[in-house]
Amino acid sequence: MTASRSKIPVGILGATGSVGQVLVRMLRDHPWFELSAVMASARSVGRPYGDAVAWAQPEPLDPRVARLEVLPCEPAGSGAGAADCPLVFSALGSSVARDVELAFAESGAFVVSNAASHRMHPRVPLIVPEVNASHLALLAEQSFGGGSSRGAIVTNPNCSTIGLVLALKPLVDAFGVEQVHVVTLQALSGAGRPGVPGLAALDNVIPFIPGEEEKLEIEPAKILGAVGAGGFEPLPIAVSAQCNRVPVRDGHTLCVSVGLGRRAEVQELVAAWNDFSVDPEVAALPSAPRRLIHVLDDPDGPQPALHRDLDGGMAVSIGRVRPCPLLDQRFVTLSHNTVRGAAGGSLLIAELARERGLLGGA
Amino acid sequence: MTASRSKIPVGILGATGSVGQVLVRMLRDHPWFELSAVMASARSVGRPYGDAVAWAQPEPLDPRVARLEVLPCEPAGSGAGAADCPLVFSALGSSVARDVELAFAESGAFVVSNAASHRMHPRVPLIVPEVNASHLALLAEQSFGGGSSRGAIVTNPNCSTIGLVLALKPLVDAFGVEQVHVVTLQALSGAGRPGVPGLAALDNVIPFIPGEEEKLEIEPAKILGAVGAGGFEPLPIAVSAQCNRVPVRDGHTLCVSVGLGRRAEVQELVAAWNDFSVDPEVAALPSAPRRLIHVLDDPDGPQPALHRDLDGGMAVSIGRVRPCPLLDQRFVTLSHNTVRGAAGGSLLIAELARERGLLGGA
Amino acid sequence: MTASRSKIPVGILGATGSVGQVLVRMLRDHPWFELSAVMASARSVGRPYGDAVAWAQPEPLDPRVARLEVLPCEPAGSGAGAADCPLVFSALGSSVARDVELAFAESGAFVVSNAASHRMHPRVPLIVPEVNASHLALLAEQSFGGGSSRGAIVTNPNCSTIGLVLALKPLVDAFGVEQVHVVTLQALSGAGRPGVPGLAALDNVIPFIPGEEEKLEIEPAKILGAVGAGGFEPLPIAVSAQCNRVPVRDGHTLCVSVGLGRRAEVQELVAAWNDFSVDPEVAALPSAPRRLIHVLDDPDGPQPALHRDLDGGMAVSIGRVRPCPLLDQRFVTLSHNTVRGAAGGSLLIAELARERGLLGGA
Amino acid sequence: MTASRSKIPVGILGATGSVGQVLVRMLRDHPWFELSAVMASARSVGRPYGDAVAWAQPEPLDPRVARLEVLPCEPAGSGAGAADCPLVFSALGSSVARDVELAFAESGAFVVSNAASHRMHPRVPLIVPEVNASHLALLAEQSFGGGSSRGAIVTNPNCSTIGLVLALKPLVDAFGVEQVHVVTLQALSGAGRPGVPGLAALDNVIPFIPGEEEKLEIEPAKILGAVGAGGFEPLPIAVSAQCNRVPVRDGHTLCVSVGLGRRAEVQELVAAWNDFSVDPEVAALPSAPRRLIHVLDDPDGPQPALHRDLDGGMAVSIGRVRPCPLLDQRFVTLSHNTVRGAAGGSLLIAELARERGLLGGA
Repeated sequence: MTASRSKIPVGILGATGSVGQVLVRMLRDHPWFELSAVMASARSVGRPYGDAVAWAQPEPLDPRVARLEVLPCEPAGSGAGAADCPLVFSALGSSVARDVELAFAESGAFVVSNAASHRMHPRVPLIVPEVNASHLALLAEQSFGGGSSRGAIVTNPNCSTIGLVLALKPLVDAFGVEQVHVVTLQALSGAGRPGVPGLAALDNVIPFIPGEEEKLEIEPAKILGAVGAGGFEPLPIAVSAQCNRVPVRDGHTLCVSVGLGRRAEVQELVAAWNDFSVDPEVAALPSAPRRLIHVLDDPDGPQPALHRDLDGGMAVSIGRVRPCPLLDQRFVTLSHNTVRGAAGGSLLIAELARERGLLGGA
Repeated sequence: MTASRSKIPVGILGATGSVGQVLVRMLRDHPWFELSAVMASARSVGRPYGDAVAWAQPEPLDPRVARLEVLPCEPAGSGAGAADCPLVFSALGSSVARDVELAFAESGAFVVSNAASHRMHPRVPLIVPEVNASHLALLAEQSFGGGSSRGAIVTNPNCSTIGLVLALKPLVDAFGVEQVHVVTLQALSGAGRPGVPGLAALDNVIPFIPGEEEKLEIEPAKILGAVGAGGFEPLPIAVSAQCNRVPVRDGHTLCVSVGLGRRAEVQELVAAWNDFSVDPEVAALPSAPRRLIHVLDDPDGPQPALHRDLDGGMAVSIGRVRPCPLLDQRFVTLSHNTVRGAAGGSLLIAELARERGLLGGA
Repeated sequence: MTASRSKIPVGILGATGSVGQVLVRMLRDHPWFELSAVMASARSVGRPYGDAVAWAQPEPLDPRVARLEVLPCEPAGSGAGAADCPLVFSALGSSVARDVELAFAESGAFVVSNAASHRMHPRVPLIVPEVNASHLALLAEQSFGGGSSRGAIVTNPNCSTIGLVLALKPLVDAFGVEQVHVVTLQALSGAGRPGVPGLAALDNVIPFIPGEEEKLEIEPAKILGAVGAGGFEPLPIAVSAQCNRVPVRDGHTLCVSVGLGRRAEVQELVAAWNDFSVDPEVAALPSAPRRLIHVLDDPDGPQPALHRDLDGGMAVSIGRVRPCPLLDQRFVTLSHNTVRGAAGGSLLIAELARERGLLGGA
Repeated sequence: MTASRSKIPVGILGATGSVGQVLVRMLRDHPWFELSAVMASARSVGRPYGDAVAWAQPEPLDPRVARLEVLPCEPAGSGAGAADCPLVFSALGSSVARDVELAFAESGAFVVSNAASHRMHPRVPLIVPEVNASHLALLAEQSFGGGSSRGAIVTNPNCSTIGLVLALKPLVDAFGVEQVHVVTLQALSGAGRPGVPGLAALDNVIPFIPGEEEKLEIEPAKILGAVGAGGFEPLPIAVSAQCNRVPVRDGHTLCVSVGLGRRAEVQELVAAWNDFSVDPEVAALPSAPRRLIHVLDDPDGPQPALHRDLDGGMAVSIGRVRPCPLLDQRFVTLSHNTVRGAAGGSLLIAELARERGLLGGA
């Protein structure tokens, strides 16, 4: 038995899209998972993945994956159902994700989804492993497929939400956070492909991203909430979010003001971030960053061009910590939207699930 | 006597810089003013303006101006003192502006300055003509040059402040504004020349502009304040400003949340902007926009590429008006930073001063 | 009878697209023409133009045009046939342009087309008014609609071809041109809407534009050819064209090497351009540039950001004239692709046709 | 003796600049070399490198290097002379490089230079290891420092030249190349820091790079020439080069037409590239790419955003191979200008020199 044969076969729903491509790239040479099924819309089904995809990653496509035939987004008989792929990543658009993901979960697959469809469902965990790994306990309330099925749906938050909650979590723990005012400067890759037309992206700002502000305003309360004896308790936190698209390829920059539970000085915030300790179970996962939070000394950072790729894009950068005349403190945080905020975040969830023995085929 | 001979001769301090060039362009064929003196740093002095300047405007340089010899930034014997140029625009950097502007005012010139040096001085008006033309009354307290001198210093606010206060003024009048949270996405031209290096500007956001947040936090209170019998009263308003440089040529986009004096619905704000009436004295000035405030119907506007040039860059655009979960209402406003926010704003001030007979040589 | 009623009503096929929008903008306040019919694909038909279009021009849409109902691209009963609009501009994509343009010509309309479909047909003039106005004589060989119909098709060359032949024409006249090696750096607006995705446009070059090189290699011979007694004679000229898309909004930059009929020095080329005399009939047209060719002194021009808008975008800029180690001389030329290279070029053709009495309704 | 102690200590002249930074990054964890001296201009001397540099690489600066004190660009007593650093990389600007490099060579150091100063000197090898490793034989004619000194100067070609000659070499070997017409679209990083101002880089093309065309026209003949019994013979090849700066961070794109020694079809060129065999001595060097030349299937490649980073930026991509109406064949080639074209190219030269025992301290 080779090492490769012992890896868990995984499938990707929406494999030709922007996030799907990053997943394909990050799964190459993964120690635990092996990409075995690529699924996409009817236009691509039946074609070799290498032909169907407009590959736009800075590294060449793995020739083995290029030869995989694109399958339809259906569990039954697709070669990508639970029998074949106990783990399925969904990089589908929200319009189709809901039903497809349910079907795969029903068939017994462990689905890690980037789509918004199921995020706010009370029995679906919305996970950032360094923040709320404990929320995986919600899976016990899911009952897909009946019987001994391992079918499940776990969701990865919105790409901006992830950067925000990673920066907030140490503050929540240390001081409490009651109010958040956030304005985002989001990268083009967050809009997928074809996304924003070049003429609208060049020399321009688009101060509107459909549905984005709503997600950023409701998801943090769930992620930062607590699963306790009496059920799930969202964190009481008021968020005002304004979202902009800017001419940046990757990396969402967030300008954040926070109202804290108790007054704290700049140095206390910096200490909270620097001292934040990721649970060893999570820190040891293959895709976990060596250092989660980088508080920068630079007076003018973080900047997408300089800091989005720290720790392979899995880290979060923070800078410009200073008092706010309206709330308590202000800062700027940056994270890579398609890595940390999408593909990499999902992968980390899947690794955590495998580590906890939640994957059927593991 | 030709029309030209009856025009008021004007000088520009810092004529080769970014704002200086826009002034040169806007003064071409001006009905009241004629550019007669271009002044710059020692490097340029003595050369024809056309040789000294790295002209970067989309229209060709006026050949007449190209032949003007660049003069030093000194009033005495420069050919640009009050005797020759009763009106002087200053587009100097703040490091040198303070003393040079004082010298010109002492010599009897009416100085309209873009620099920050004198803005917050209690006897120096900080003017946006549509907002606080009445503040020109502060000039009565200035006493440059003694005797019958018309020497004076009037200042134009920071480029982001101008867009902000133009959007705030109708709200102040209608509802009162007590709190403002503003995050800016500012254009490269605001940094002058050479400004931000290309490598730092491409595919990037720089979340820091030295000194900018402080200006944006203190200037609105002065501009929106009142000159009354008991002296000057700044508006009690708390501003939190976070400033970013984005890859946009011209046009500052501001994401604004406001806390109002009384609750008001979105439609009331829109009505306040649409109904805002510019004083006829100001509205009739040559450089005044036909319509000052454009409230857009577009769901995703304003955008720099589409709206910065409305009314020749002198108008302000507003969009995305919606409630704020933390303060009362939110909106996005855009204005052209080197036109409305600098050269055009200064020109409008000068036109107002001329209309009121404040220019010595008029 | 008002001035407006005496204007010639015109229609635009493909009015919601990129070139269509520029035509709408340039027709505003036109002295001879009045836009009265906007036609587009089924998706837009029946809606007010202002709703159907994603207006992306730097000036607001004319409210009168915004209220026009979008008509189908059919002459009969559309309200845009020859009876109603004797002049029709076509900004359609090549896939549909061929048949639609024929139908309008058959119905008696004078069609000025931007599409490639009919450009190389031997009886269809391919016109750049300053270069080959005489080619309109080919219209005598067209026989659309029979009888007294004024139905006709005239074509505007490819956007890059126009800039190239305007730069070549004075050299052809003065020295002869036998070989041309041209590499283009073309703007995003040339790809229409949605065109190049933002992610492909940012920080990138795309060294391929479908069909572009072929057009640039065959069109100059026709445009620079002669209509003589013995029929049409194309210019014997060999062109090698390589086309690139670059992150520029407007303005195609061409790096050109030419093999001349006789050796000529740099100064002779400059003199040929500076002395080039546009026929007075053309120079007097409303949309003609004041100066057609601007030979720049700048060592590093022309540049799209600085020179594309000269004379409202209707002029051509030339710089960097210097010997070529392989052919004879080299230079760089720039022109505005959607103005000079499309909408404005078409408009100039239509103005010329009206001046010559070729429009049925004039 | 630790592994580290057995590494060859190296110095970098101009370590704070753009190419210097890439060298610092590429030397991290190098198997043979250890960065021990960073040298820069007077402004930086005496400061820790981490303070003196405006680090702009996507990976964090090595903390060990950050603590190195910046030394002056002088061999004597600087701690960076031959005694301490037998290998010195020069990333100096050409204005100062000439004398500084001579001084280091005189002191006994093996200097690998990116500057243009010495490239065309008949006794200075101009090396692209995969192309002309044999030219290192020219070093026998150098006599720096006298006696047993290993002092030497080897040069790395211009960043565009490297990509060009790598694409040409297989064609030269297979068919002969007599004429080359090349137009470049060069990245901003090639201009160093601060380089092109952001306002000139955004939405623009600059069709001029001082001195660049000359280098591209003369360097290939030397690199592709032969060192034989009768001395050095440059390749008789005529090159016409036109150079443009485009809004791209990294990666120079070259549009190339070639006149061959004998006619060859597109497929023969592709075969020549695919079959090109790098000398095993070079292919085994630590920084050599796994595959040197990638001929792409994509119809629209190579593109900087997609292909500049192939094999860590050390590979060359080629696409769009097709006949040329003027010369024989055309193609587009792309290479990473600061890696393959500067820092990485220099590093590969140094590795080759070490492998051949040419480094004094090895």
